[in-house]
Amino acid sequence: MTHDTDVEALRQRRENLADRLDVPVILWSGRSSARNFPANCFPFRASSHFLYFAGIPLETAAIRLEGGKMTLFVDDPKPESALWHGEMPSRTDIATQIGADAALPMSELESHAVGAATIAAQDTMTALQQSRILNRPISPAKVLQGIDLELAQAIVALRLSHDRAALIQLRQAADVTVQAHIAGMAVSTNASWEADVRATMEHVILANNMSCAYSSIVTVHGEVLHNDRYHHPMQLGDLLLVDVGAETSTGWAADVTRTWAISGQFSATQRAIYDVVLAAHDACIGKIRPGVEYQDIHLLAATVIAQGLVDLGILRGQPEDLVEMDAHALFFPHGIGHLLGLDVHDMEDLGDIAGYEEGRKRSDRFGLNYLRLNRPLRPGMLVTIEPGFYQVPAILTDRDRREKYRDVVNWERLTQFADVRGIRIEDDVLVTETGREVLTAALPTKAEAVEALVQGDLSSLEAAYS
Amino acid sequence: MTHDTDVEALRQRRENLADRLDVPVILWSGRSSARNFPANCFPFRASSHFLYFAGIPLETAAIRLEGGKMTLFVDDPKPESALWHGEMPSRTDIATQIGADAALPMSELESHAVGAATIAAQDTMTALQQSRILNRPISPAKVLQGIDLELAQAIVALRLSHDRAALIQLRQAADVTVQAHIAGMAVSTNASWEADVRATMEHVILANNMSCAYSSIVTVHGEVLHNDRYHHPMQLGDLLLVDVGAETSTGWAADVTRTWAISGQFSATQRAIYDVVLAAHDACIGKIRPGVEYQDIHLLAATVIAQGLVDLGILRGQPEDLVEMDAHALFFPHGIGHLLGLDVHDMEDLGDIAGYEEGRKRSDRFGLNYLRLNRPLRPGMLVTIEPGFYQVPAILTDRDRREKYRDVVNWERLTQFADVRGIRIEDDVLVTETGREVLTAALPTKAEAVEALVQGDLSSLEAAYS
Repeated sequence: MTHDTDVEALRQRRENLADRLDVPVILWSGRSSARNFPANCFPFRASSHFLYFAGIPLETAAIRLEGGKMTLFVDDPKPESALWHGEMPSRTDIATQIGADAALPMSELESHAVGAATIAAQDTMTALQQSRILNRPISPAKVLQGIDLELAQAIVALRLSHDRAALIQLRQAADVTVQAHIAGMAVSTNASWEADVRATMEHVILANNMSCAYSSIVTVHGEVLHNDRYHHPMQLGDLLLVDVGAETSTGWAADVTRTWAISGQFSATQRAIYDVVLAAHDACIGKIRPGVEYQDIHLLAATVIAQGLVDLGILRGQPEDLVEMDAHALFFPHGIGHLLGLDVHDMEDLGDIAGYEEGRKRSDRFGLNYLRLNRPLRPGMLVTIEPGFYQVPAILTDRDRREKYRDVVNWERLTQFADVRGIRIEDDVLVTETGREVLTAALPTKAEAVEALVQGDLSSLEAAYS
Repeated sequence: MTHDTDVEALRQRRENLADRLDVPVILWSGRSSARNFPANCFPFRASSHFLYFAGIPLETAAIRLEGGKMTLFVDDPKPESALWHGEMPSRTDIATQIGADAALPMSELESHAVGAATIAAQDTMTALQQSRILNRPISPAKVLQGIDLELAQAIVALRLSHDRAALIQLRQAADVTVQAHIAGMAVSTNASWEADVRATMEHVILANNMSCAYSSIVTVHGEVLHNDRYHHPMQLGDLLLVDVGAETSTGWAADVTRTWAISGQFSATQRAIYDVVLAAHDACIGKIRPGVEYQDIHLLAATVIAQGLVDLGILRGQPEDLVEMDAHALFFPHGIGHLLGLDVHDMEDLGDIAGYEEGRKRSDRFGLNYLRLNRPLRPGMLVTIEPGFYQVPAILTDRDRREKYRDVVNWERLTQFADVRGIRIEDDVLVTETGREVLTAALPTKAEAVEALVQGDLSSLEAAYS
């Protein structure tokens, strides 16, 4: 195998789990999903919970954890597989690499399964196998009960705070992601299509033997929040919203967004809104430290954006009042960010168990419902901070909303900002013992520095930041 | 939608199906497969059978075909989806685009499902839905029975010969694939890792708004036939085996392999084996025309390779005798190629129904078992021709094989070719009315032309080919 494993870190994770849970645990890695026929699969992605404890993306494997000990269940490669896949490590080799205490074939798993807790794998075939081997129905991971819920809560407690081994990986993902964004900026003025920029950026990720942590967003239509198409031409007056992140070979992710002017020069209106979003970004990051409520960070972003839009004459009123009535959400309809780790929305397979402190539920408020994280921050947490401004037609042309916000939006003034369809600025921020560290700080956020990179003026980067 | 559709071609395909089958047919498009959590999916790939008749990759949709008429079943986008995914075309818009005769919501499908034939989708969730709506178990597509088998046979009859609309797409995929290979060659002498070449080639594919038809193989260990890792360094004495193909946005694939010297200069031994493989490649392509048995093409490749290895002193004996005893398969253990179309192994989801003429079965012979296509060629078929030479340790160190082939292999002589771990040369060949057309002919195969491209000497390309 070619993945770095930190056997000591894996052992510590198992012991931490044993401290919180006294039932045996079996975690399945999952199997490849067929693309258009069984032999033509999507790239295998192991379950994140499996990766957390096993450290490497073994396919069709399981681990049993109990009392800090790990037993690996995996079949030795079949002799004929050497023809197609080369010589693969044996079960014993793999067990040594990941520090397993024992190693058995998959056929032995059933006899070691009594009373074990688990979490459903993402692929249906593995989920069916889990039910069969544990001899009980397995709930989807977001509606867990009993020992499976206890397991999920224990895993969340561990995975919420990243250990040293995780941070090494997360920093690698962040570094490659920064490189990808710089490459994307540098190619923009010469790119004909969104697809050219996407290809340039994913090139950097692939060349570093990483994969994309999620479907890249590279679009002149930033107002479409989950845009995964790349067929629009790059036109000089447009902004390009780029949300691209790398994932290391053992599954650790980065998640970064920048928005730049394709020409390398923001228009006055683009620059004005950009600076509002950046002010929210900087204010939020400045507030991150242990003990702070993430929802308060979100509301801070809302307030700063509301203030900025008041200053620009787009909104009318007091920022706090505007946030209270969710007027900011007309233009910033999503949450300020989310957990980041082995998943780009970390542990989102568990529903809100990871994102929401026990006893808290999602708000019904238009301006809070999409908030994915609602916990007090603690050291070791990695979160994104990603304020944005979007002119989403589905929101802004909605008759009820136009009526409700009739007096607080200056629609006439807003038309002058038609060249700002969507702006988002997103960084990955680690909560430290005393404050914060931005893992993606090497990628500029200031408008003039971004402009310099797009214009290909790498030398000015340092000056812009001095 | 941004996909070209040829409504007339789609209508003709439906009519051709109606000519062969008088039961109603329902084909599901499938749904996205979760990667590490439900909202983080692999890129959606619609079922190839659906794509063949519907023309565009709609997600979670179905079409009902009967008597040449098509009814589209798909739900209108939910209002809130406009926030995340932008304004999407309505069911009626889509129906117009693909030339459907009627369009209904998915909830109506069950009442139109009586007596319909189908083919299992690749994702388990859709397969379960198929069973529920048709109210019967759905067999995996490779073990079909009854009307489903009749449907598969009818679809195979159609998809075996590509129509004009398909060929437009297949040529586009081939052209982009050729560009990708040329880019890969050009970057090789400056690349540090296999991953650099892979990234450069997939860059070309993504920049053309296409995807990879299969997991790219870009490896200095060509002897590992399905190698999907890219972590080895590029060392000057090594060969790089590169099997990369593009797929258009409506699903049509290319599949091309080249093998080049990383230094830009084959060693004498590499060149000698390369020329043997190329001789097989050229001989096979030269034989392609309607009526010829594909298995005979395969055996021709085996014979040419055996002859070449005799000439080099690696094998001893008469080529025909060596092929009879499968000695060629020590070094060329796979088939000469396969069908190509909407799938890189076209219709392989149907097992051997597409690949093997009715009544034929796979051979047990070591040298024939992996042959994926065994039919007489007919106009409109697109096949790959991909002879190779590999030194697979699992084969060459096998005690039984060394004993069986003791007298016909000069193992001593073979050691002099240690710098040839794997070579394959693969092109996509269309069977025409009178012979053949190589869709990927723009990509050189001759050793000196490949060397020129790797050395960055694009100007010599024309000269090398004149």
